[in-house]
Amino acid sequence: MSSQYGKKIKISIFGQSHSPAIGVSIDGLPPGIKLDIEELRAFLKRRAPGQNDISTARAEDDIPEILSGLAGNVTCGAPLAIIIRNKDTRSADYRELRDIPRPSHADFAAHIKYGGFQDLAGGGHFSGRLTAPLCAAGGICLQILRGLGISVGAHILRIGSAQDDPFDPVAVSSADFEAILNNPLPVLKPEAGEAMRKQILEAKEKGDSVGGIVECTATGLPAGLGDPMFDGIENRIAGIVFGIPGVKGVEFGSGFAVAGRRGSENNDSFYMDGEKVKTRTNNSGGILGGITNGMPLLFRAAFKPTPSIGMEQDSVSLSKSENAVLQVKGRHDPCIVPRALPCVEAAAAIALYDAYLEQ
Amino acid sequence: MSSQYGKKIKISIFGQSHSPAIGVSIDGLPPGIKLDIEELRAFLKRRAPGQNDISTARAEDDIPEILSGLAGNVTCGAPLAIIIRNKDTRSADYRELRDIPRPSHADFAAHIKYGGFQDLAGGGHFSGRLTAPLCAAGGICLQILRGLGISVGAHILRIGSAQDDPFDPVAVSSADFEAILNNPLPVLKPEAGEAMRKQILEAKEKGDSVGGIVECTATGLPAGLGDPMFDGIENRIAGIVFGIPGVKGVEFGSGFAVAGRRGSENNDSFYMDGEKVKTRTNNSGGILGGITNGMPLLFRAAFKPTPSIGMEQDSVSLSKSENAVLQVKGRHDPCIVPRALPCVEAAAAIALYDAYLEQ
Amino acid sequence: MSSQYGKKIKISIFGQSHSPAIGVSIDGLPPGIKLDIEELRAFLKRRAPGQNDISTARAEDDIPEILSGLAGNVTCGAPLAIIIRNKDTRSADYRELRDIPRPSHADFAAHIKYGGFQDLAGGGHFSGRLTAPLCAAGGICLQILRGLGISVGAHILRIGSAQDDPFDPVAVSSADFEAILNNPLPVLKPEAGEAMRKQILEAKEKGDSVGGIVECTATGLPAGLGDPMFDGIENRIAGIVFGIPGVKGVEFGSGFAVAGRRGSENNDSFYMDGEKVKTRTNNSGGILGGITNGMPLLFRAAFKPTPSIGMEQDSVSLSKSENAVLQVKGRHDPCIVPRALPCVEAAAAIALYDAYLEQ
Amino acid sequence: MSSQYGKKIKISIFGQSHSPAIGVSIDGLPPGIKLDIEELRAFLKRRAPGQNDISTARAEDDIPEILSGLAGNVTCGAPLAIIIRNKDTRSADYRELRDIPRPSHADFAAHIKYGGFQDLAGGGHFSGRLTAPLCAAGGICLQILRGLGISVGAHILRIGSAQDDPFDPVAVSSADFEAILNNPLPVLKPEAGEAMRKQILEAKEKGDSVGGIVECTATGLPAGLGDPMFDGIENRIAGIVFGIPGVKGVEFGSGFAVAGRRGSENNDSFYMDGEKVKTRTNNSGGILGGITNGMPLLFRAAFKPTPSIGMEQDSVSLSKSENAVLQVKGRHDPCIVPRALPCVEAAAAIALYDAYLEQ
Repeated sequence: MSSQYGKKIKISIFGQSHSPAIGVSIDGLPPGIKLDIEELRAFLKRRAPGQNDISTARAEDDIPEILSGLAGNVTCGAPLAIIIRNKDTRSADYRELRDIPRPSHADFAAHIKYGGFQDLAGGGHFSGRLTAPLCAAGGICLQILRGLGISVGAHILRIGSAQDDPFDPVAVSSADFEAILNNPLPVLKPEAGEAMRKQILEAKEKGDSVGGIVECTATGLPAGLGDPMFDGIENRIAGIVFGIPGVKGVEFGSGFAVAGRRGSENNDSFYMDGEKVKTRTNNSGGILGGITNGMPLLFRAAFKPTPSIGMEQDSVSLSKSENAVLQVKGRHDPCIVPRALPCVEAAAAIALYDAYLEQ
Repeated sequence: MSSQYGKKIKISIFGQSHSPAIGVSIDGLPPGIKLDIEELRAFLKRRAPGQNDISTARAEDDIPEILSGLAGNVTCGAPLAIIIRNKDTRSADYRELRDIPRPSHADFAAHIKYGGFQDLAGGGHFSGRLTAPLCAAGGICLQILRGLGISVGAHILRIGSAQDDPFDPVAVSSADFEAILNNPLPVLKPEAGEAMRKQILEAKEKGDSVGGIVECTATGLPAGLGDPMFDGIENRIAGIVFGIPGVKGVEFGSGFAVAGRRGSENNDSFYMDGEKVKTRTNNSGGILGGITNGMPLLFRAAFKPTPSIGMEQDSVSLSKSENAVLQVKGRHDPCIVPRALPCVEAAAAIALYDAYLEQ
Repeated sequence: MSSQYGKKIKISIFGQSHSPAIGVSIDGLPPGIKLDIEELRAFLKRRAPGQNDISTARAEDDIPEILSGLAGNVTCGAPLAIIIRNKDTRSADYRELRDIPRPSHADFAAHIKYGGFQDLAGGGHFSGRLTAPLCAAGGICLQILRGLGISVGAHILRIGSAQDDPFDPVAVSSADFEAILNNPLPVLKPEAGEAMRKQILEAKEKGDSVGGIVECTATGLPAGLGDPMFDGIENRIAGIVFGIPGVKGVEFGSGFAVAGRRGSENNDSFYMDGEKVKTRTNNSGGILGGITNGMPLLFRAAFKPTPSIGMEQDSVSLSKSENAVLQVKGRHDPCIVPRALPCVEAAAAIALYDAYLEQ
Repeated sequence: MSSQYGKKIKISIFGQSHSPAIGVSIDGLPPGIKLDIEELRAFLKRRAPGQNDISTARAEDDIPEILSGLAGNVTCGAPLAIIIRNKDTRSADYRELRDIPRPSHADFAAHIKYGGFQDLAGGGHFSGRLTAPLCAAGGICLQILRGLGISVGAHILRIGSAQDDPFDPVAVSSADFEAILNNPLPVLKPEAGEAMRKQILEAKEKGDSVGGIVECTATGLPAGLGDPMFDGIENRIAGIVFGIPGVKGVEFGSGFAVAGRRGSENNDSFYMDGEKVKTRTNNSGGILGGITNGMPLLFRAAFKPTPSIGMEQDSVSLSKSENAVLQVKGRHDPCIVPRALPCVEAAAAIALYDAYLEQ
């Protein structure tokens, strides 16, 4: 395992789905920053399970307990550690999985890597539950970034065949995502949310699941962040976002669409907007040569459909080395995307704040 | 700058497009590995410029000089350093760019980050030329991996609107990419190569450029490589591939297409193939939970069209803070994709060998 | 702050002297290792305060709570997190120190570095209390190393003017240190312990403190550990041992004494002991060129007298920028050395196990 | 091998004693710093061999060739790479050592670690010659630090039984070490230099060698540098200084002498010197809690006598597994200390500048 990330702020995530607690240590936060603990709780609540009919039934209130790093509510320079107790665990549901791995879940790969010693209960360290400490660290970074004039936000661009409008690459502002962040399905176009909800409930009814895309932006970023070749902003964001379970693709700006274009179409012309250098288009997603250029940062992450589905699936028995049929029990999200959205924001905030501190 | 990558083998890339030399130090190679220097030269030649009418006219033979790390042709445990002399440099072409940044090139972002001290000649450290030492390090890793039964190879999936067939996700073998690696446009379907060549030459004629997609695979990988959450195989590969200039998206397996799918469609069923556990489909691209599962690794990288184009473009004068028109001189590739292909292979090989050594 | 250490096992320590808890996350432990939690508790007890008249009066039972990383008592590959609650805190004792820093304590340097936001209560993150999580991580590494045939142990070589016999550099065995580890003053020569106890109680009576030296060894180490130039065994051990508060010197083998010697005196001749290559002397302390040579590892760490003493001392008022007199309150060890001894063992065990895993 | 060091400036050293070249890549230097190449050459000359009768006869002019990282003589933000060609190599002298390892040299440990594949010629990567690139990187850091008002310098405190006066811990200034830096034996007290020279020549005549101590200081350091627990100034300096071949001990301030002291003797009282907080004594060596306190930094490194001596020594034949007698050929320094002195300055400068940039 290697659940550490960052250069200036170094997060270290620990826990399993059914261990006594999950948590994170954040080393390197500057001293003297006042944190709003209520706001952090509210942010974690956006990711917490069990809140509505499109989420898993597992009930966790996900109240963060801050063990260190503060004097009062102000950072003191020491590592900040946060833990969240696991409460609603039903490990019995997972016994069969030791022998019969779930298709497209980490079970089999982990079995090989950890020699059968991995904690299977609830998916162990591979569980989406481990994104709660990621969100705890990210929620703190989001607060600090906002104090620096930088806002990070996201919407759901797609679930199954239901599609939202994309952010406006040059004009997106924090108002766009702040208005929707408490919706169960944060989208720009309300009818897209309705269509997505329908897709999720249809899948749920059949014991199936559905995938989607989160689009994330950061506004107010200064030009000059990022350290190429291998700590450019794209490397940094991809390096953390691919740590969120289920992500299979990350693209910046126009992303894969650039493959079909000419340079003359794709290049973002510069112009002076008063004293500020801006670009007329933003196919670059705010990043040139791995470095921010002062335009809105834009990226998208593709999430696969939750692999744990209730339908019967073909698998194998590891002990008998023969084919087997599996029916997954346990409680699972029919679509991980709505709860993954704050995780993407959190991951981006950690990556960006770390890059900011490295200047 | 942060041009270091890796945990067990740590590469450190240096150089600028027009500095006396470019190079790489590779720390951590195991001792006792015999290298084939001729093969390394041949690999570097696949990336070298000036070889045909779809590449830049800059003439560099790119002969690697190995300064250390070997005793005979065998690794001795000491860091292996390779340099490549820059020969055909024409720095005068770049004077104007100090004031007028090229749209969608690193010029402007670097100007802000490095306070005007960045080396502009030939794009400095941002030049695609810096992928030569990446290929030197990667060429060595490719050799070593092959000795371990692991083959890494790629083809061009798309240039502009011309599309090749994708690799077969479950049946791809090294024969597929070895057969085509010396083609100027390595594709699976010859007519796709013709169409791509046409797209490139059309763009070139107009002083324009065109983007594309490289699809890369690794076969023979054992199950169990990768260290989630943040050093999973996806994180590792994205973390290095986004260091290749021009990459705007990276996706694994079915990538962004998973967003539109149900779990029941997307999950890869397991079955026993003799004693070996395999999957019937490979939407996961050989990676589950950040860990290889023994199926072929598959990923794609999207390259934007070369931003340096000969057509007039709108930009700004940094000294005068006013709009300006730019016409780029210098010698540039009308499409970076064919020369980027070995870079993608090299990057993947470095990431995979590093993950292999971390087991 | 940067309270992370290690390459393969990465520990991340958090907490302050008076924060709700202190703890450590250990990322990278191999799966499948059965831990003996009772033994870990017993090891932590060796460091715990309040056990006798030569230690601080602060009463902490230091019971470790394992939050993650195990399935049963067996490591599962996920990061192992341990916390210890702080119980007996009296923060009021530290108020005056915000203005008047203690001579030779971190107060002043931390005030400058953290801009006055550092947590002063109990010394905050600079407290010797933070060695409890270091010992928690180290206690686990000690167990694992012993399973590999490697024993790490220490004795007090000196306190004030009282001196113990040194370990025999070539013949030291685990029996030497295992016999004494539960003594309040672990020494090889009982009369040395008596003399040390007298020195400590004399200092305590006067409200003063006294320094000392811990000598540590590791037996059973295979030849070949260590990664020069900068991850050699000396670099690794010094890099962690200097993280224990109060350490002002670290030396290996004959250490500073080598300065006065000829090569012909200092060189350790090789000879065959059956099939094994050994050295007749061990001035090298088991390390040549940063790499273990199979002989016992030997190093010493010098600890300064506890800076917090009850006597009146000259200092300054930071708010008034004028000289001031300070009388330290709070509960402090008159000699940190006895409680620092298991910390040195813990630090060495972490460094050595990390080097072992890097092979 | 792991010849990388640093967090903000990351040096990567490569080369072997007899490889075509040795060198270093320095990643992370800020842009816009004008370097004085002549001064760098002069600094490297202080370490270069073959200059007088107390040094090895190997003749190397050690002219640095800068391959990248500059635009003009000004840093441009790209990694700065420097190489030095090896010229006067006589590899034949080292053939016997493949079978019969030199006592107290790295030969045996390296043989085990690298499975017999290590480069033996001239000591390979373990050679003191690898301190030339360390000095190249350090020489650059020394220049930059001086521009920031920070001076790093050293003197020889001891060789064999000949002893110099120590630096004055509170009043040492750059004038003290600048006055002596070009002496073959830089000492504060000329008669100490005479005595040292005598010790070296006596040892040389007998085919023997002799050890010593370098004392190093840094003046003008701001308070507040260092990142405890594990990146404190002591950890950082020890972590690099133990990478210089032959170092067996590192101590700060009063070092090992603190073991015999009471707190009331050892504590450094604060007082106001105008607006500046100073300490009346400096037993702390300018470091409290791992952080600089604004007083002069002081540390000492103990060097063992060169293990390569001309006298007959007992060793073993690795191929025959039997005792053997060895007589070392090749050219060696009878005392490494004079040439190691600039290496200690270089190492300290790298560590301090890296800590400075991490603020």
